[in-house]
Amino acid sequence: MTLSVRINPRILEMQYAVRGPIPLRAAEMARAGRKIIPCNIGNPQALGQRPISYYRQVLSMLENPALKDQPGVAKNFPEDVIERASGMLESSGIGTGAYSESAGFRFVREDVARFIDARDEAEARGIPASDPDAIFLTDGASGGAVAVLEALICDEKDGVLIPVPQYPLYSATMARLGGRLVPYYPDEDGGWSLNRDIMEEALEEARTDGVRVRAIVVINPGNPTGALLDLESMREVIEVAGKWGLSIIADEVYQENTYGGEWHSFSSVLGTRDIPLFSLHSVSKGFYGECGHRGGYLEVRNPPKVEGEDLDMLDILLKQASVNLCPNTMGQMMVDLMVRGPEPGSGSESLFLEEKKKILGDLEMKASMIRSAFDEMEGVRCFGRTGAMYLFPRLEKLPRGCNDFDYCMELLEETGLVTVNGAGFGQAPGTHHLRIAFLPPVEAIKEMLPRWIDFHHRLLRG
Amino acid sequence: MTLSVRINPRILEMQYAVRGPIPLRAAEMARAGRKIIPCNIGNPQALGQRPISYYRQVLSMLENPALKDQPGVAKNFPEDVIERASGMLESSGIGTGAYSESAGFRFVREDVARFIDARDEAEARGIPASDPDAIFLTDGASGGAVAVLEALICDEKDGVLIPVPQYPLYSATMARLGGRLVPYYPDEDGGWSLNRDIMEEALEEARTDGVRVRAIVVINPGNPTGALLDLESMREVIEVAGKWGLSIIADEVYQENTYGGEWHSFSSVLGTRDIPLFSLHSVSKGFYGECGHRGGYLEVRNPPKVEGEDLDMLDILLKQASVNLCPNTMGQMMVDLMVRGPEPGSGSESLFLEEKKKILGDLEMKASMIRSAFDEMEGVRCFGRTGAMYLFPRLEKLPRGCNDFDYCMELLEETGLVTVNGAGFGQAPGTHHLRIAFLPPVEAIKEMLPRWIDFHHRLLRG
Repeated sequence: MTLSVRINPRILEMQYAVRGPIPLRAAEMARAGRKIIPCNIGNPQALGQRPISYYRQVLSMLENPALKDQPGVAKNFPEDVIERASGMLESSGIGTGAYSESAGFRFVREDVARFIDARDEAEARGIPASDPDAIFLTDGASGGAVAVLEALICDEKDGVLIPVPQYPLYSATMARLGGRLVPYYPDEDGGWSLNRDIMEEALEEARTDGVRVRAIVVINPGNPTGALLDLESMREVIEVAGKWGLSIIADEVYQENTYGGEWHSFSSVLGTRDIPLFSLHSVSKGFYGECGHRGGYLEVRNPPKVEGEDLDMLDILLKQASVNLCPNTMGQMMVDLMVRGPEPGSGSESLFLEEKKKILGDLEMKASMIRSAFDEMEGVRCFGRTGAMYLFPRLEKLPRGCNDFDYCMELLEETGLVTVNGAGFGQAPGTHHLRIAFLPPVEAIKEMLPRWIDFHHRLLRG
Repeated sequence: MTLSVRINPRILEMQYAVRGPIPLRAAEMARAGRKIIPCNIGNPQALGQRPISYYRQVLSMLENPALKDQPGVAKNFPEDVIERASGMLESSGIGTGAYSESAGFRFVREDVARFIDARDEAEARGIPASDPDAIFLTDGASGGAVAVLEALICDEKDGVLIPVPQYPLYSATMARLGGRLVPYYPDEDGGWSLNRDIMEEALEEARTDGVRVRAIVVINPGNPTGALLDLESMREVIEVAGKWGLSIIADEVYQENTYGGEWHSFSSVLGTRDIPLFSLHSVSKGFYGECGHRGGYLEVRNPPKVEGEDLDMLDILLKQASVNLCPNTMGQMMVDLMVRGPEPGSGSESLFLEEKKKILGDLEMKASMIRSAFDEMEGVRCFGRTGAMYLFPRLEKLPRGCNDFDYCMELLEETGLVTVNGAGFGQAPGTHHLRIAFLPPVEAIKEMLPRWIDFHHRLLRG
């Protein structure tokens, strides 16, 4: 007789909507031969986005350094690729087949620090320099977020402020760790902006429940909202964090995906203020879209001291990294390529810039096409300056008894379009949304939009 | 003023010796220009082991499929490599840059299942076939072990039987999860063998403490002991697990590293018995030694049902995998290469077999050289049939006031040899050991051994 076992209730409770019933139904339909347009997940290369040639040329040479010495190598690889791969192999000391340092290759962490300083114009603006010893390479950005939360959540009375709607990694991780998710609700009609009242209200409610709030998570550009945070909202977050002794966890993986205006890093807005900041970045998004390589980094500023110990947060994070041995080396190498592209004037530069421009240009165009279609749909409104890879329109009119899950399921059945309903991310009570990732090829979107508009009005008319 | 925060006491408590004070001192010495022989970690390619050519040729083509179409490709790659890479790319559907299914590419899981069945001679021996839907690809083997423990440990009254000495991943993970590590002590003088009395005694002690034991971990070949488990010991484990309703977690990452006799998989010894079995394998060890690629798999047999739910353990593991999106794709591809080498008769086969033979032959010779040296050291005894990449001798004579940590630290200072002291893994009370990984080049070991023997006797004579 098969054994029956008790499972950790926190694991049982954990939800993960992005891969829930709607994509399962989509997979079923695809197996039955129906044409599916998968807009439920930010997985660019699964939807036809081609990898950046330069990255893959270097990566292939890192895996197979013998290529450097083979006849005709100069015909197959630009000279600067050969140089770059040789340099990376030499800097790594050991190539891709050995465990690296637990925090990741030092040369990559140094390149990350230089990238951050250049991006933030740190020197000119008097922002403290980024420290390679406060950078941890991770398997995607998730690894960094999970490590910080795991260290901070001591028991069920510890909470973290999480924006709702939110990326389900955060709710799933909080469920797993048994801490309290303290929701705060960005102002949708104000373009998903933040102000101190929004955060203070959430904090006040948490205190009433006896919850000690330890940190605030900000996702910028937002996931699922796709909205770009304005400078004033960021300053308010920093004020509130400073006042209440919170750490800031800044999920900035979409920092290259900004189509609606200027993006600011939290490190640059924080400047010299002594508030703990944990920033995340990843190779999965941007114009690189290398999700499968699971590369990312966590940068720490003002690491908090550990109460009662002669340690700080960097010691803790390093110990956590040690148990996992090291992040995968190809992901680490890809982080290095992300933060340091081809040299200006090198043979690879023009193709690289062309590919980058095409990918970002297409994303911007697709977002704009979809937003225009919303204007034609009765009761569909979309707020905020466009960023990330998502739009998150509010469905203000739905037939009686129909919620956003029903809407997305019907939309799938009728048009093959796979989206995620708002409830999968959480949303303000009484509202309905959906998230669409604008990744499929332009032609597929062009063909799909009229069918969606048509579906929408048929549904509304009952 | 820098913030001071409370850190999760479980994370604070977690220990990880393999990267503790001895390797830190070694790094310091290396920076000061001293020659170091790092035998503290199973990281073959960091010690000069070269990657298997076939693997890296295929991997480079997966990263850069354009190589297939370039002029002179036939001069740079054997034809079967091109075919294999093309086949893998086609089977993956999306290449290496997209998230795969959360459990990993299906074609890899199918190849893993076929590998297991062939290895176990499943059909001929009436062993149930391996099921691709019960296989989860992971980032190294650690990911699988952690997921199973995380699901099974509900609170501090849940315990797991762990062999002591043990690989510190298990103690660190149990500390992090807040469950109880229930030690059992394999019979060192009996070659690190097991019998039911050993396990029953540990279970009885746990029950007295009110601990519910949920699973038993077996590492075979052993880490740190390096010992190969005999068939009778494995049968005893299965008997005890069946009697007390335990799941078996079989860490079999060293299954190719067997120099002292025949190795048996737990799946083959389990046969048709309905006991939950979680087996782990990894690309990091064996003759492949691809630690940096962080590839591995978890195979589940007889997945337990979830108490009170219409779910089984596979549903739980799939949900856990979903939160992490997917294991890194290059690690997954490397798993496929591990379980399916070049085709018999293909152009790559002879070099592959030659490289494999050389690596395993060298490992065997190095282990044997070091074991012989122990015979010359007073009071040093090493038990068990050699497996894995480690020897774990018992230090029966030490100067008064000197423990195994002191011994290893002195050995490092005097000879540059980096080992891990037995206490880093746990050991039977009152005993002293060290673990040495026999990975450095033969010449380095040959040169080091007389200096070690000399150090040993000087230390003993005071």
